[in-house]
Amino acid sequence: MDFIKKPMEIENRSMEIIAPYLKDLNLTNEEVKVYSRMIHAAGDVEYAPIIKIHPQAIAAAKAAIKGGCNIYTDVEMVRTGINKRTLAKFGGEVFCKIADDEVKKLAENEGITRSMAAMRTFGNSLNGAIVAIGNAPTALFEVLRLVNEKNIKPAVIVGIPVGFVGAADSKKALAEQAEIPYITVEGTKGGSPIAVAAINAIMYDLLGNDIRD
Amino acid sequence: MDFIKKPMEIENRSMEIIAPYLKDLNLTNEEVKVYSRMIHAAGDVEYAPIIKIHPQAIAAAKAAIKGGCNIYTDVEMVRTGINKRTLAKFGGEVFCKIADDEVKKLAENEGITRSMAAMRTFGNSLNGAIVAIGNAPTALFEVLRLVNEKNIKPAVIVGIPVGFVGAADSKKALAEQAEIPYITVEGTKGGSPIAVAAINAIMYDLLGNDIRD
Repeated sequence: MDFIKKPMEIENRSMEIIAPYLKDLNLTNEEVKVYSRMIHAAGDVEYAPIIKIHPQAIAAAKAAIKGGCNIYTDVEMVRTGINKRTLAKFGGEVFCKIADDEVKKLAENEGITRSMAAMRTFGNSLNGAIVAIGNAPTALFEVLRLVNEKNIKPAVIVGIPVGFVGAADSKKALAEQAEIPYITVEGTKGGSPIAVAAINAIMYDLLGNDIRD
Repeated sequence: MDFIKKPMEIENRSMEIIAPYLKDLNLTNEEVKVYSRMIHAAGDVEYAPIIKIHPQAIAAAKAAIKGGCNIYTDVEMVRTGINKRTLAKFGGEVFCKIADDEVKKLAENEGITRSMAAMRTFGNSLNGAIVAIGNAPTALFEVLRLVNEKNIKPAVIVGIPVGFVGAADSKKALAEQAEIPYITVEGTKGGSPIAVAAINAIMYDLLGNDIRD
């Protein structure tokens, strides 16, 4: 069996394959890097036209990361995928509360999902932070409620929940609010690896290279 | 903002939305459950015709899980997503070696990916186990080599690597071998949540319910 075994070679070849699908989208060089990793993570070039990046999102994420911001995730898979060693170089940490007893109780008492309860429990910690949602539409709706009703201001919301119940609507609501820069994907597609890819792409770009650590 | 907040309601509604896309595929009830969770995890009904489940795969996975088999994954995101509390009820554990120093050294020395080195390091532990690959084509190629050359026999291979370099070829090779029952997805699409969804669906079905723990 003959196949490419070297990580950087795999990555570079993949980016070359994706490039033609981006050429008509008028992207900045920074955006190309983020789009490419998101498309690579899904193995799906049909993401190209449905990825939506707010014009300030990458700059805001870079500034927040450089300032040592934390990242708050809806599910453990997103926490796992984000390169925590790279984030730690800037002083930040990644938090997920979905398995906390406090969150479990709140979810049961309120009849809501755990990831929604987790976002509510983060509360003011989300100010100036990056929110990364890769699974639960309910978590994204809750963050938008915190922004609207509680005046909480994350630096950036990477909101890429997935599925057929609420995901498309929650992402539409994210793209229609004017307050917080965002990265999202229109429609039902999405998922943890896509949210992870966007954040890792921005961190690697900040380091001036594409090396995974 | 009005949206469904109750986990079981979200899940049931999602399965209803997916059902019409499965009706012409002549699936067993067991297969419908696995397909539905995989499609749900991707938010992409175009998975319906490209999911490939070997006729013995679900039965073999159930028998292995009931027998207390372990699950070996290529990346940490797959390990994170598999419901380890449910697997532990049957006596099994989930292992991932991608971050081990031993594996890192092997990968550097051989000029191969870490997930490929991790599979090689698992070696004989893969006998009778479930292999779950959600990211790296190189890991899947390596498992197939272990099957062919080293006579290693996993109970089932859930091989759903993603991307544009090697993923489609590695999954084609998986579907073409006749020795080990498999679950896969044709082409470039795939990823950790899809592999996780297949395994969790089988475990939940074994428990006779759809409750996530």
